[in-house]
Amino acid sequence: MNIKGQHYHTIWLKENDPSVVQIIDQRHLPHHFVIEDLSSMQDCARAIRAMHVRGAPLIGVTAAYGMYQAARQAPESGELDAYFAEAAETLRNTRPTAVDLFHAIKRSEEAIAQADSKDARITAALKAAEDIKQESIDFCRQIGEYGLPLIEAISKKKKKGEPVNILTHCNAGWIACIDYGTATSPIYMAHDKGIDVHVWVDETRPRNQGARLTAFELLEHGVPHTVIPDNTGGHLMQHGMVDLVIVGTDRTTRKGDVANKIGTYLKALAAHDNNVPFYVAIPSSSFDFEIADGLKEIPIEQRNPEEVRYVNGWINGKLSKVLICPAESEVANYGFDVTPAKYVTGLITERGICEANEESILNLYPEKK
Amino acid sequence: MNIKGQHYHTIWLKENDPSVVQIIDQRHLPHHFVIEDLSSMQDCARAIRAMHVRGAPLIGVTAAYGMYQAARQAPESGELDAYFAEAAETLRNTRPTAVDLFHAIKRSEEAIAQADSKDARITAALKAAEDIKQESIDFCRQIGEYGLPLIEAISKKKKKGEPVNILTHCNAGWIACIDYGTATSPIYMAHDKGIDVHVWVDETRPRNQGARLTAFELLEHGVPHTVIPDNTGGHLMQHGMVDLVIVGTDRTTRKGDVANKIGTYLKALAAHDNNVPFYVAIPSSSFDFEIADGLKEIPIEQRNPEEVRYVNGWINGKLSKVLICPAESEVANYGFDVTPAKYVTGLITERGICEANEESILNLYPEKK
Repeated sequence: MNIKGQHYHTIWLKENDPSVVQIIDQRHLPHHFVIEDLSSMQDCARAIRAMHVRGAPLIGVTAAYGMYQAARQAPESGELDAYFAEAAETLRNTRPTAVDLFHAIKRSEEAIAQADSKDARITAALKAAEDIKQESIDFCRQIGEYGLPLIEAISKKKKKGEPVNILTHCNAGWIACIDYGTATSPIYMAHDKGIDVHVWVDETRPRNQGARLTAFELLEHGVPHTVIPDNTGGHLMQHGMVDLVIVGTDRTTRKGDVANKIGTYLKALAAHDNNVPFYVAIPSSSFDFEIADGLKEIPIEQRNPEEVRYVNGWINGKLSKVLICPAESEVANYGFDVTPAKYVTGLITERGICEANEESILNLYPEKK
Repeated sequence: MNIKGQHYHTIWLKENDPSVVQIIDQRHLPHHFVIEDLSSMQDCARAIRAMHVRGAPLIGVTAAYGMYQAARQAPESGELDAYFAEAAETLRNTRPTAVDLFHAIKRSEEAIAQADSKDARITAALKAAEDIKQESIDFCRQIGEYGLPLIEAISKKKKKGEPVNILTHCNAGWIACIDYGTATSPIYMAHDKGIDVHVWVDETRPRNQGARLTAFELLEHGVPHTVIPDNTGGHLMQHGMVDLVIVGTDRTTRKGDVANKIGTYLKALAAHDNNVPFYVAIPSSSFDFEIADGLKEIPIEQRNPEEVRYVNGWINGKLSKVLICPAESEVANYGFDVTPAKYVTGLITERGICEANEESILNLYPEKK
């Protein structure tokens, strides 16, 4: 998508210098646009861990580029299995919840294992990273195409000039992926087609990815939107001010339980209570077909309490943080929650829309049966 | 309750100077303890409007002291009805949702109307303010006494050393009242009785009254607590980490619909989904017996969008604010929501606990039948 009219992806190989992977360092958005060089596997791991990049699909692609950097840094020969296993382990340990990370690393490892020279390993790892990246772009576009009719149908029922009001939580936009986004992809397609849409953007405490990133990308693309505290969505739904909820996911089980940014579950409950359709946009890379029960089986990351105690923002053009509670108070910071499948109206995948249950999911992904 | 070991109320007449009403200016908590002089009705109105004081019961008492200041400022004779009607109107227009405000002003107006000289009007207005204040203290203490057995019962079922985990939203503590608080009153009583309690404190965006005020008062009183983003409560309830929810209310209808700080409804839904008891602590001053349907009949205040766009906090010992979204993005700031009675387990009043329905409420308040 575009930033100030110029097209960007969130990650790419530096022009004329294949030793450097470049990313948009998202910590500085929306006020500063900073491109960062990742010159090693360690740089890639740090960028994931410290959330220079975030969003399940983008984490996966960044890890794959991390394996590419590992291949570049590798010795010509020797204990290569152990070397790559350690690199993979380092990258896997950056974030625990998003399953895309594990899928991408596994695919890179398999590609590297099949090559028989350092050059071949580098080529294979780069191809894996670029394939995963291209797949993410394609999947996001397809999610948009399958989700678009949901918005079109609501729009047709509206009076002229009334927008379709869509609520989203956190950032499942192109900034969380490579392009288009997952939850935002149908929204961008609808907007580009001239359908009147308006997005309620949950600010998404503690890190405010909605207020910082979703608002930023919608603004850059010209999509009308309103930033709201996370507390607000229920009230809006009670008063008919939300037509549709679309969120992303960091990991969804084969039975349709959806792990996503903390607070998603509360919005799903409110949607259910007010008969608002609640959809999850999900590329196949975010399915975990190995597990069934999201509440029991998905590990929920606990992050640094300082993310809650301090709020990051801009003051006099500088990124600063303010303390919002007594310094001596205990603080907890759970990163994700799990929305049980029964509260999910449907999953918008790159293969079409299915219900959030095992049968319907496996009909779309018969190879996982 | 105590601050640094010294007992305080939230509002009082200045010692040796009855021309001045004093309050704790809550905007500076928890990092600075500032006492503010309110020397006129206009000062009182401004303190309510700009949230130097907040919390439904405290707003009511401050408005009553505002009427007292109006009586002091009044002419000896002349168009007194119009004068007091205008003062009452000014005070009523400060905040739209909390019903305590309207009750307190009405009571002051009636007291003033019965007096027949300026001195008598001043005395009557002061007595009304002090009566309403003392009533709030008594009611809060009684709410604590009626709520305590709920906590005791849960504690008895726990293993030794396991605390009773109570979640609360916003600040319905003594800082929102005069003393004890409403939602916090049973918690303080349980703690003082040696029952092991732990409070999950919703930070309560956008103004962070939980993170700033509830955490502050619990800390000062030595009650174990953990500040959490508003997004977190659902996850905690799914994992058995919340035994009880107690919140306050700004206005509750005779059928038991509960208006409270925005986001309360989402916690009620999560409590309902996870069989966690959800109680509302309410002094009779917060009932609106005139209305039945909270969603249709309670006006919801929309506050300044800047409260969402900027987060207030402390940086280098100074109160500052940081911008958390693109400056050009639209922002909405709804102050309250309404939790339908069906999601409320019970109301803890100064007369005992009742169910959130008309019959049960009117059994406690038969004079309102």
